Amino acid sequence: MTSTDVPTTDEGAYADLAGLAAAPLWRQYGDLMPAQPVSPAVAHLWPYARLRPLALHFSTALSIAEAERRVLMLVNPGLTDPPATVNTLFAGIQIIMPGETARTHRHSANAFRFIIEGDGAVTTVNGERLRMHPGDLLLTPGWHWHDHAHDGDTPMMWLDGLDYPLVNSLHAGFFEIYDHPAPPPRTPDELSTRQFMHGRLNPTWLTPDTEHPKVSPVGNYPWAETERALAAIADDAQGSAAEGILLEYTNPWTGGPVLPTIGARIARLRAGFTGLPRRHTASTIYHVVSGSGATTVGDTRLDWSERDIFCVPGWAQYSHQVPPGSDATLFSYTDEPVLRTLGLYREQWL
Amino acid sequence: MTSTDVPTTDEGAYADLAGLAAAPLWRQYGDLMPAQPVSPAVAHLWPYARLRPLALHFSTALSIAEAERRVLMLVNPGLTDPPATVNTLFAGIQIIMPGETARTHRHSANAFRFIIEGDGAVTTVNGERLRMHPGDLLLTPGWHWHDHAHDGDTPMMWLDGLDYPLVNSLHAGFFEIYDHPAPPPRTPDELSTRQFMHGRLNPTWLTPDTEHPKVSPVGNYPWAETERALAAIADDAQGSAAEGILLEYTNPWTGGPVLPTIGARIARLRAGFTGLPRRHTASTIYHVVSGSGATTVGDTRLDWSERDIFCVPGWAQYSHQVPPGSDATLFSYTDEPVLRTLGLYREQWL
Amino acid sequence: MTSTDVPTTDEGAYADLAGLAAAPLWRQYGDLMPAQPVSPAVAHLWPYARLRPLALHFSTALSIAEAERRVLMLVNPGLTDPPATVNTLFAGIQIIMPGETARTHRHSANAFRFIIEGDGAVTTVNGERLRMHPGDLLLTPGWHWHDHAHDGDTPMMWLDGLDYPLVNSLHAGFFEIYDHPAPPPRTPDELSTRQFMHGRLNPTWLTPDTEHPKVSPVGNYPWAETERALAAIADDAQGSAAEGILLEYTNPWTGGPVLPTIGARIARLRAGFTGLPRRHTASTIYHVVSGSGATTVGDTRLDWSERDIFCVPGWAQYSHQVPPGSDATLFSYTDEPVLRTLGLYREQWL
Amino acid sequence: MTSTDVPTTDEGAYADLAGLAAAPLWRQYGDLMPAQPVSPAVAHLWPYARLRPLALHFSTALSIAEAERRVLMLVNPGLTDPPATVNTLFAGIQIIMPGETARTHRHSANAFRFIIEGDGAVTTVNGERLRMHPGDLLLTPGWHWHDHAHDGDTPMMWLDGLDYPLVNSLHAGFFEIYDHPAPPPRTPDELSTRQFMHGRLNPTWLTPDTEHPKVSPVGNYPWAETERALAAIADDAQGSAAEGILLEYTNPWTGGPVLPTIGARIARLRAGFTGLPRRHTASTIYHVVSGSGATTVGDTRLDWSERDIFCVPGWAQYSHQVPPGSDATLFSYTDEPVLRTLGLYREQWL
Repeated sequence: MTSTDVPTTDEGAYADLAGLAAAPLWRQYGDLMPAQPVSPAVAHLWPYARLRPLALHFSTALSIAEAERRVLMLVNPGLTDPPATVNTLFAGIQIIMPGETARTHRHSANAFRFIIEGDGAVTTVNGERLRMHPGDLLLTPGWHWHDHAHDGDTPMMWLDGLDYPLVNSLHAGFFEIYDHPAPPPRTPDELSTRQFMHGRLNPTWLTPDTEHPKVSPVGNYPWAETERALAAIADDAQGSAAEGILLEYTNPWTGGPVLPTIGARIARLRAGFTGLPRRHTASTIYHVVSGSGATTVGDTRLDWSERDIFCVPGWAQYSHQVPPGSDATLFSYTDEPVLRTLGLYREQWL
Repeated sequence: MTSTDVPTTDEGAYADLAGLAAAPLWRQYGDLMPAQPVSPAVAHLWPYARLRPLALHFSTALSIAEAERRVLMLVNPGLTDPPATVNTLFAGIQIIMPGETARTHRHSANAFRFIIEGDGAVTTVNGERLRMHPGDLLLTPGWHWHDHAHDGDTPMMWLDGLDYPLVNSLHAGFFEIYDHPAPPPRTPDELSTRQFMHGRLNPTWLTPDTEHPKVSPVGNYPWAETERALAAIADDAQGSAAEGILLEYTNPWTGGPVLPTIGARIARLRAGFTGLPRRHTASTIYHVVSGSGATTVGDTRLDWSERDIFCVPGWAQYSHQVPPGSDATLFSYTDEPVLRTLGLYREQWL
Repeated sequence: MTSTDVPTTDEGAYADLAGLAAAPLWRQYGDLMPAQPVSPAVAHLWPYARLRPLALHFSTALSIAEAERRVLMLVNPGLTDPPATVNTLFAGIQIIMPGETARTHRHSANAFRFIIEGDGAVTTVNGERLRMHPGDLLLTPGWHWHDHAHDGDTPMMWLDGLDYPLVNSLHAGFFEIYDHPAPPPRTPDELSTRQFMHGRLNPTWLTPDTEHPKVSPVGNYPWAETERALAAIADDAQGSAAEGILLEYTNPWTGGPVLPTIGARIARLRAGFTGLPRRHTASTIYHVVSGSGATTVGDTRLDWSERDIFCVPGWAQYSHQVPPGSDATLFSYTDEPVLRTLGLYREQWL
Repeated sequence: MTSTDVPTTDEGAYADLAGLAAAPLWRQYGDLMPAQPVSPAVAHLWPYARLRPLALHFSTALSIAEAERRVLMLVNPGLTDPPATVNTLFAGIQIIMPGETARTHRHSANAFRFIIEGDGAVTTVNGERLRMHPGDLLLTPGWHWHDHAHDGDTPMMWLDGLDYPLVNSLHAGFFEIYDHPAPPPRTPDELSTRQFMHGRLNPTWLTPDTEHPKVSPVGNYPWAETERALAAIADDAQGSAAEGILLEYTNPWTGGPVLPTIGARIARLRAGFTGLPRRHTASTIYHVVSGSGATTVGDTRLDWSERDIFCVPGWAQYSHQVPPGSDATLFSYTDEPVLRTLGLYREQWL
């Protein structure tokens, strides 16, 4: 048959299609155009009490030089290849031990860390040294050089958040090692935080980074300030019916999310809080800063307590409950900025 | 071992990790953090002369009611499961025959069609009837109702472009059939085009759709106007060193791309044109409106002629060549708006 | 009395205030905080039939070298010192005779011209030569060099629109003469129009001017295209209840107004049209391209016919009427972009 | 002469022009198109030590009911009719005595107050009660209801800043008295400040006011936070060569200025600081929070000390000097947002 002959049988036609790297849409329309989002991701909880000893085990079994970064990946049981925590985002538990240093590198994936325990470690991001304390949120935006060093005397552990699943699915992942001796810091320690953190005041002698206009210039959002924000609001606001007193960390230049692909948040759920169930196309990863409670996701109930990590995939119905007696505080991060900027955010209250 | 015991062996620790749905990052760091984007997508060309008879075969072998839409999917040999043309975008060849109608549906995926051949078919998008002519670009933005009907007397074929691979990877795909009788049109035929197409004038009595602020209000960008644009510039601009006289279809409300996730373009490559090689993180799908030439993508050479479709995956080095004698005109579409808005667009001239 | 003594009488206190360049707000509160805008500007009409012979008179009585620009200012009877047409905008009638040239200058005030009659004159704006035809809208944005020359053989007259009253009231007026010989054009004639005018296509090899981001890159919006836009809409849209088929010239990079301070528009009022009365804080200057009619502004009735210019001050109630028999076409310009961007636009339908 | 006759003499032509409300541009070109901005405004300083006793005088001589607001206007000697402090902005000293209340009103002019002395007074802005302390910046954005009441026992004085000169020159001034009994507060006291002030966190359950998108939702920017910002930066930043550690109060929704027309700032000038001279088209009004120094504006030297107010008109060359020994802190406000958004901001270092 010449290339422009009409095949005479369906079988022949389907074979020709396959030979051309083409396929009949009608045989998989429903898969490609589902009535509602179909996600292999599942709701899952990672108990910190179980992860911690494993992190400690590897802190002695494996040098940081071997590991590049010593991170326990939290892999969604439905998203193992490639591994991810929710479809666009990653969560890991990183541990660094007194005396260790992790060499300088950078990647196009955006990252942050939220400190869980320990004190005394320092990260240097694009030449600015930032000291880490429990509850601090530190940013390492895409293509910013960063390393870690630990001068303290107890293990230091944090939650690593990255968007590499999204970045890799967009085929936009780059990575580079800084293979020179680390240069001296370029600015006084923690200056970005000191210049931007108080009184909603911005330094007028700085301007947004034109190459990364949606990236916050703040190195560290310290826990001390986050706590003040929650205390200041106290019980005077109703907050969100689904998420309580849910506050978003913002980029001082724009008022928007801290990273172009990741929104980071802190929530106080009052003792006895029962969230209205809802669902939205954004996926969320939670870390329990304090307190305990439960989150119902579809038919799954996740009982969480201090320091646990759990995830709620997009378009899954969920609601939070906190028992009477004491408040809970949840840090969370989400791909909502991605869905919103692409016009794909959708929300439904149930 | 109780849940907080420290495992005593690496083996035990790795097993515990697995039991918790956790994994050691250090065993797959390089895969997750590649030095440069790693994409299974390959450069590929689909010859129209081979697709056309297959489309015609199925136009008789398969009713449109059975098919929902009678589309030959152009599936990248490296992206078969789920099938996609490049990682974020889809291309298909749709055929509709005289007398046929395709029922009304809508999906959150953004779509457009670029007409290849035939005349007389009409699509109705959110209540506006739009007649299709070769070279026209018609939009069916996310969640806009649309159907097709064909009153003419020759087969009608077009290129279907969709972002469903992106939308599905973001778990944001919704689909709905309109299962009532089609309502009468809500506006005079083609009024959106007539209100926005000429003289860079916008109707002041309309305002952007607040729910879809990045979506163009134009139903059809007619070929007659696209041709006028290319003719008006003639040989008086150098254009892009890589892509010649490359013009972008714009959203009249914003000056930006026509859809939040897809940029659509037309290029005239002059006879004898040799593009400077470059690469960028955006992926592109091309359709040859007229002329012939070749595109070198890495080590692959794609020789194209009129009506062919081919793709260039992200971060692949590519360059276009047109032989002396006659110009070529290429329609193309790209996920560049996605990469730019997320801060992930990167370009390199080689 | 020492400087910190308390004065013992009101009289003494008022005198002390005056001596310090201070004043009691309570003695002029009502003037400074009026219940509604108080404007000395009045509605006024300038009949072209009366202005034309005067322009012709000065075209012989006064050389262009003496005049710098030979312009009849249309001065609002309520705004004579400094002279303005409405509080923020200026209108003038400029005349240039065959063989004349007006030297190159630039000013921070934004300007445009809308051609009334004649043919053959050319203006060069930042190195691009633009030929003028009746009905064309040409931009000379702030701080763009521009000159004029007339190779034709009939007088050339146009409406000059500027925002110098606003710019001067903001103490931001700069002016400079180009006192070198005019350089050769930097681009092919009218290339900006040819690159941006058709099919809502933007050239991808150009980027917005970062210093003038709200300035349209289009040199000339030709009347031929404006006419096509009005013809394409025909009678299929209702348009604005106050202004009929009112279309706004747009900046291709943003979809917004052509200049940061001035919106330019064309309207077709159908034969028999009666506009709903309204008022808004924006001020408007109209030029009658064709047809005749009347505009009622408060208690004033302005009867207009072809080529006349008239103004409607901000917050004045107005409505347009067109007699049966034939349509009218009105060009207009407005400070609405200023009021909107400053949050001061307010509109009321009556 | 009939209306279309050509006048035969220049004199006749000029008379005809005048009769038509037209005028020859060539007779005033230089005035309307100055080489550089020409402003009647002058640099001026108002010594607080002289204003204070006058304010106290009128606090007994004039009831607040008579005054509506008891404000000493600071009138630029060059801008007396209408009175303004710089061309677009107003400064006044308002005094309220224990037991007094000022009734609820609103105006389209944007306003703020910066507290100079006293304690115990409360302002209610759109239903939120805000207590005032020295150094606090409180906003009363355009068309927000506001009143004052004073429960304390010492006189309360503040700097009133308004944009009414700009608003009136744009003929956009509206004013309204609330002539019903004051309603109870709509929200807990100072909730807006508590929800937005700490940790760069925004409440996710609120959204920007779509009618006033450029208006900060913060009622009070407390001095305690401003002080913390200055202390946190300490001597670790160079700041602006002209203005030292100059910080801008920002709108949490946008990262931009607090009001669409007014930027508000705080600066710490270190002991011994000598600012580089510069000029810009923005006009600025300063209030000395602490310390003393001098500002040279053109040929004028303004020696300032604590609580004084002074102004620097647009395009005047100025520089600040602080003597060795102690720092100075300057609050200032400016029309820079207006000039920037209209493309009219220009700056020159000398």
